[in-house]
Amino acid sequence: MAEDSGVLPPKENFSEWYNDILWRAEIMDVRYPVKGVYVWYPHGFSLRRSTYSILRELLDRDHEETLFPLLIPENEFMKEAEHIKGFEEEVYWVTHGGTSELDVKLALRPTSETAIYPMYSLWVRSHADLPIKYYQIVNTFRYETKHTRPLIRLREITSFKEAHTVHATWEDAENQVEDAIALYREFYDRLCIPVIISKRPDWDKFPGADYTIATDAIMPDGKTLQVGTVHHLGDHFSKTFEMTFEDENGEQKYAFQTCYGISERCIAALISVHGDDKGLVLPPEVSPVQIVIVPIIIKKRAEEVIEAAQQLEKELKDAGYRVKTDSRDLRPGAKYYHWEMRGVPLRIEIGPRDIDNGVVMSVNRYGEKATIERDNIISGIESRLEDFRDSMTERALSHAKEQIKFASNLEEAKEAVKSGVAIIQWCGSEDCADEIEKKLDVSVLGNEVRLDFIDNKEGVCPICGKPAKPAIVARTY
Amino acid sequence: MAEDSGVLPPKENFSEWYNDILWRAEIMDVRYPVKGVYVWYPHGFSLRRSTYSILRELLDRDHEETLFPLLIPENEFMKEAEHIKGFEEEVYWVTHGGTSELDVKLALRPTSETAIYPMYSLWVRSHADLPIKYYQIVNTFRYETKHTRPLIRLREITSFKEAHTVHATWEDAENQVEDAIALYREFYDRLCIPVIISKRPDWDKFPGADYTIATDAIMPDGKTLQVGTVHHLGDHFSKTFEMTFEDENGEQKYAFQTCYGISERCIAALISVHGDDKGLVLPPEVSPVQIVIVPIIIKKRAEEVIEAAQQLEKELKDAGYRVKTDSRDLRPGAKYYHWEMRGVPLRIEIGPRDIDNGVVMSVNRYGEKATIERDNIISGIESRLEDFRDSMTERALSHAKEQIKFASNLEEAKEAVKSGVAIIQWCGSEDCADEIEKKLDVSVLGNEVRLDFIDNKEGVCPICGKPAKPAIVARTY
Repeated sequence: MAEDSGVLPPKENFSEWYNDILWRAEIMDVRYPVKGVYVWYPHGFSLRRSTYSILRELLDRDHEETLFPLLIPENEFMKEAEHIKGFEEEVYWVTHGGTSELDVKLALRPTSETAIYPMYSLWVRSHADLPIKYYQIVNTFRYETKHTRPLIRLREITSFKEAHTVHATWEDAENQVEDAIALYREFYDRLCIPVIISKRPDWDKFPGADYTIATDAIMPDGKTLQVGTVHHLGDHFSKTFEMTFEDENGEQKYAFQTCYGISERCIAALISVHGDDKGLVLPPEVSPVQIVIVPIIIKKRAEEVIEAAQQLEKELKDAGYRVKTDSRDLRPGAKYYHWEMRGVPLRIEIGPRDIDNGVVMSVNRYGEKATIERDNIISGIESRLEDFRDSMTERALSHAKEQIKFASNLEEAKEAVKSGVAIIQWCGSEDCADEIEKKLDVSVLGNEVRLDFIDNKEGVCPICGKPAKPAIVARTY
Repeated sequence: MAEDSGVLPPKENFSEWYNDILWRAEIMDVRYPVKGVYVWYPHGFSLRRSTYSILRELLDRDHEETLFPLLIPENEFMKEAEHIKGFEEEVYWVTHGGTSELDVKLALRPTSETAIYPMYSLWVRSHADLPIKYYQIVNTFRYETKHTRPLIRLREITSFKEAHTVHATWEDAENQVEDAIALYREFYDRLCIPVIISKRPDWDKFPGADYTIATDAIMPDGKTLQVGTVHHLGDHFSKTFEMTFEDENGEQKYAFQTCYGISERCIAALISVHGDDKGLVLPPEVSPVQIVIVPIIIKKRAEEVIEAAQQLEKELKDAGYRVKTDSRDLRPGAKYYHWEMRGVPLRIEIGPRDIDNGVVMSVNRYGEKATIERDNIISGIESRLEDFRDSMTERALSHAKEQIKFASNLEEAKEAVKSGVAIIQWCGSEDCADEIEKKLDVSVLGNEVRLDFIDNKEGVCPICGKPAKPAIVARTY
């Protein structure tokens, strides 16, 4: 399908590398004839499936999955004025069915608040109905006028996981925000991706929210990619959509809400944070192929080697691994190249000498070799994959730490944001943020930064000299 | 959420029963403010998830999952003239992004041929690339002007599984059609739903197909519901989209294609074929809750009973069952009613006397009771669920056999289609089909009928007197 010929550009040319790896590793085809929408290749889709399985597993602990319609009637969509302001330039409108014009225009959901909350207002009656914690995984649409980019800036977001919760009190909703942050942390831990969690400035929060907590990953070029947001909606939407419940004293009260989302940007981060000059590097849990077996065939004993490979494949499949044997008539080197590009965590080589010695050779995606006793193959592979996973986490974390620099003044910050993210003191005012953004050509992502290796100790704002707290500033996607 | 109050209308009033069970059993909420689109409740969505897991499992044996865009540009959509004729009155058009008019109108896919095949024409290069067998599960859209009905006639089909294959020869495509039919048969076997497979008349085939094989279920009112179609596309689309490949002799040839789809109508059939006056009846494999435990609490030994129920729940969960304990402060009868409505295959009652006797009482959804030894609880439950599944299949099959009547003349057929499906001889001509359809107020669904209990022996067409073969005629959804 995609050809293997040619070589990936070095990862330091990140933009080229990214565009190239998408088709070379068969993640997406960008040749679909509509701007900003793309096609998932089977290999890419398989990666998406495993990744979203983790998200489902985490959410299913105490959420339930639902599905709401794509089409939102104009009148419902327009109810929420502040919300609309954030989206009005970005909404696709369906105006015709067949050859006739529709009575009411229909928006393609850019996000589902205005599709879901009219139903919630029917469902929420009493305090006994609360909390409600539902989610859905759907396609959403934005008419992006900026430069589009696969998985990152899309007109059809194919994989938007959005959760919407309803609570009796503001504090319950606040607790839910914290639960959601913990859930997103766990999700990115499973993907071995370090994330920065911070509170977005007020002018950058979700339209209609009391506040927004965001999750950002750092891309190889030092720009940040927002890969998850959690919003406390207060009773803002609940007032618009008349979502009231009878509390324990028989009084009607407005409910409080949260919503939080993750899109296929999580796949963009997965590719970009871990990949290298040879291709994808994938955590075993989500890799479409976890183990590839390459039989090393020498004429005399070809049949024996192929049989040994097939037997091994069967055992590994029975043990629950996603495994492939590459028996194509190609040089081993070409096979290695092929599977490295696709990020396979572990390669098993098996040749006549290995059979004689009762071992197999294993090579992880970082090129680290180790022989495994054939008799203990399952436990041997399990521990190699676990070690590999741990290495991925360590490497990604140590790289992220290099990318994050503490800056004690604007000069240092300016230097830091050339290749990464700067943490500087900021008083919290919009004027000072504007100044910082202009001077450094960055965005102030947020404060109340949650990173294990920094504490939020107070300092002085470099603009106004007032008391300040650490904030993340960076160039962003 | 949905209230339990009130009673389901009897199933013999099928239309009322169907509308009612959807909300009482928490499948769908029909109150969304756009005609023909509906909301999946968590319970309904869970049923959908399990059902589509089976479909994925069957397809994943030799297909791969992909994802193509929803939006199809007008020019691509219009390329396939015959195909368009079938859809032009039914397509939703996106004409605006934000406040600006789009240069090229975008169709919401009614089905994805014109989204997928331009990409296939890039991917198919050589005979070595074939066959291609990809599928996707997506939302598709039809601007239905007829009466809409949840899960059956929709404007947003939320769960369209469509597979699209490419082959080197017409015969390879024909074999794929047979494989797909076998797959759909297996799928409906897993759901305990008997289906009629037949070849649609030429004028009723998929627009652009060489021929169409359809899968129909018989609803309680005797009308048939088309719950799957398989199309041999010949090289029709491949010529339109220039899908050529180099064969083994180095010549460029047009490829041959098939496509086949199943929508959430499979859920409509699941509900309608098995349900009864008390609610849903679900096969254990897809039921959101497979076992409900109802502790029978007597004051004195309340704690002991609750503990025993919790212990049992834990064991069953560890054994992989989806199980719930209903400890609400309600009469047992109210709990039975609640879980019967939701189709739970097996109820376990556990009270003080059961504890003393080392047993539990099990009651399946048909009300059949059996005690199970507490010591052999897992194997006891396994065999009860298997037996229940077998009963479901038997009951559904024997009911379907009652609904299908062989008619040796039009009078008999007229009588038969009042409550079910008639099999009559038909010569295959459109004129005679028109006559039959007019006289009986039915559709001629097709001939080459595949049902284990009929043979396709020749007879005489009741209209023209020419040689004929059995055909299915029925009122249809």
